[in-house]
Amino acid sequence: MSENIQLIPGNTLLTATPEEGRALAMKMSRLIIKATQPDATIREKLRPVYAEDAAMLIAIGQTVALEFATIAAANNYWRK
Amino acid sequence: MSENIQLIPGNTLLTATPEEGRALAMKMSRLIIKATQPDATIREKLRPVYAEDAAMLIAIGQTVALEFATIAAANNYWRK
Amino acid sequence: MSENIQLIPGNTLLTATPEEGRALAMKMSRLIIKATQPDATIREKLRPVYAEDAAMLIAIGQTVALEFATIAAANNYWRK
Amino acid sequence: MSENIQLIPGNTLLTATPEEGRALAMKMSRLIIKATQPDATIREKLRPVYAEDAAMLIAIGQTVALEFATIAAANNYWRK
Amino acid sequence: MSENIQLIPGNTLLTATPEEGRALAMKMSRLIIKATQPDATIREKLRPVYAEDAAMLIAIGQTVALEFATIAAANNYWRK
Amino acid sequence: MSENIQLIPGNTLLTATPEEGRALAMKMSRLIIKATQPDATIREKLRPVYAEDAAMLIAIGQTVALEFATIAAANNYWRK
Repeated sequence: MSENIQLIPGNTLLTATPEEGRALAMKMSRLIIKATQPDATIREKLRPVYAEDAAMLIAIGQTVALEFATIAAANNYWRK
Repeated sequence: MSENIQLIPGNTLLTATPEEGRALAMKMSRLIIKATQPDATIREKLRPVYAEDAAMLIAIGQTVALEFATIAAANNYWRK
Repeated sequence: MSENIQLIPGNTLLTATPEEGRALAMKMSRLIIKATQPDATIREKLRPVYAEDAAMLIAIGQTVALEFATIAAANNYWRK
Repeated sequence: MSENIQLIPGNTLLTATPEEGRALAMKMSRLIIKATQPDATIREKLRPVYAEDAAMLIAIGQTVALEFATIAAANNYWRK
Repeated sequence: MSENIQLIPGNTLLTATPEEGRALAMKMSRLIIKATQPDATIREKLRPVYAEDAAMLIAIGQTVALEFATIAAANNYWRK
Repeated sequence: MSENIQLIPGNTLLTATPEEGRALAMKMSRLIIKATQPDATIREKLRPVYAEDAAMLIAIGQTVALEFATIAAANNYWRK
């Protein structure tokens, strides 16, 4: 792992819109993978493994759902 | 992955009814898969894999439950 | 998947009792499976697969727990 | 599955103590298994399968943790 | 399973510090395993199985995270 | 397992920034692994196992997401 990777772009959970919050959830979940496996060559080899595996795609969906729950709460669900 | 896919239809978590909120949860979970695997041909090949696999169907149910929890909270559970 | 399946019976998360809320959690989790795999013949074939598999029964339990958490919050935990 | 199985003993999430709440979480998670697989003979055959499998015991622990989270919130964490 | 095992040491979720809350989360998750598999001989045999298996160690981490979420909320996050 | 391992660095969930909270989530999830498997030699052997396995990296991401949800709530989402 690497301590030098930025884990939250912009260092905030607040976003202007739900769409941006969802994109942040995806980015945050990827950055944990990056911090755990900083070797880009290995990550590139793993990409087709998960991207063509139904079970792993579903698991990625669960991770993003968990991250998004936190981001949505932080933004008070973008209620007007 | 693709940065160009819309992740939240309508860019809002607010829906008129629980039924619409549930449908949104399903759509949002599918859009994460689409953003992670943008190649429609590969996604089509994976569809019968998960749709005929009991464990994966259950895992999809967990993902939708997680997404719906956020949507339901956003809508204050559609309490009158 | 089918867009024509009702995902939340009665289109409400509110129930008179915890017991009814729990039954709703079970129904909602099954309806996601039905919407993802609308072919009743395939679902019938999968039933003995998960119903006689300890790991899948446990996973079903996790799904119901997640759905119930949302329903219980919606009902303010049926506190008097 | 059977619709005749009681899913929540006492039809309430409220308990006098955390210990009782924890026991309720265990019971509720087992009753979902029972409702999904009502055949006691099959459930008896599955018992040694999960009770001697480390991964399944851990998964049971996750289920109970999820159920307990709801029960604890319902009881306002048994704060005095 | 055994109904005679204490599931929550001290019968409270309240702890003086986050560190003690975290230790309680670990203990509570282990006590569910103990209650589900009360035979100490079998549990001893399973210990090296999960303690040397990366996937199971990660799953244990998820369980503790879930338990801790409840304990932390109970303690209002130990905010001053 | 070892009772002597510090589980929460600084014995607090409060951090100055989201980025620090995210780093704490990663550390806390690793310390549970350490407390469950205190033998550093075994942990070192497991590192390449999970760091080169797509499914385990995703599972680690789920763990961190769960821990971070608690930390973010503790910090009131670092709202100004």
